[in-house]
Amino acid sequence: MLRREYDEQVCSIARALEVVGERWSLLILRDVLFGVHRFDGLLTSLGITRSVLTERLNHLVAEGVLERRRYQTRPDRFEYHATAKARELWPVLGHLMLWGDRHYAEPEGPPRVVEHVGCGGAPDERLICKRCGTPLAGQDVAVKPGPALVARGLQHEHARA
Amino acid sequence: MLRREYDEQVCSIARALEVVGERWSLLILRDVLFGVHRFDGLLTSLGITRSVLTERLNHLVAEGVLERRRYQTRPDRFEYHATAKARELWPVLGHLMLWGDRHYAEPEGPPRVVEHVGCGGAPDERLICKRCGTPLAGQDVAVKPGPALVARGLQHEHARA
Repeated sequence: MLRREYDEQVCSIARALEVVGERWSLLILRDVLFGVHRFDGLLTSLGITRSVLTERLNHLVAEGVLERRRYQTRPDRFEYHATAKARELWPVLGHLMLWGDRHYAEPEGPPRVVEHVGCGGAPDERLICKRCGTPLAGQDVAVKPGPALVARGLQHEHARA
Repeated sequence: MLRREYDEQVCSIARALEVVGERWSLLILRDVLFGVHRFDGLLTSLGITRSVLTERLNHLVAEGVLERRRYQTRPDRFEYHATAKARELWPVLGHLMLWGDRHYAEPEGPPRVVEHVGCGGAPDERLICKRCGTPLAGQDVAVKPGPALVARGLQHEHARA
């Protein structure tokens, strides 16, 4: 489906959006990177239809952003895992999250907080760990429920890390 | 229109996408940040309909991402300029561009190249200037036609910086 809508655009941003800019695709990627790997888990987390989720997953697998792994036979069932290509998109999600936190947080604070695994520091506005100074890549971070989810009693339901 | 589609999502990424994740919104923002400020210029650059462009611009203005400035009277005509809130999204666009360059460039190379204004360096994978080491913010960068646009003779038409 590459370049279906942005066909005339000789632009790397447009082409990246063809793959991950479709409605829901970045949120699917968010969930997979944050630890939701199964179809039913994604369905619950996202609240979309099975057909839309199937289509988006197939597209992301075809583009090498997600990898399908069988975890059960008879019947075959699959998990979806982030590839290296997907993990390279962490800065896009991280910066969207920081921007959303800054401008659209709940009164209680942000819904989720990102933590440097093994250190506990939070990312600054350049996604560098505030505590130890390490530039944070996708594999370095875990996501925990923040004040807005805890206040709603959703810390277990929506914990993804 | 905030939270129209992602209403149930207590998530800063989802909320950010409500504002800038609609089809075309990030590409409008790209153009404005890269120097296209007028309605007709955006129409030509994006190749979308007047009604879709009008709707997206109104949404981005309502959310404080773009600012409308009158540049002519009788009839009134307006330019669209990036606000500070918009410039904070530069890392999202910058990382999408790097990802698109890496995985979806043309055979000739990337369509556009980003340059540190006054220095001439290119951003590394963390959007830090490779030449002088400055972390690059939205106001520090200019975008120039790259090999893929030059090869197509589109360097003037699509130059945005």
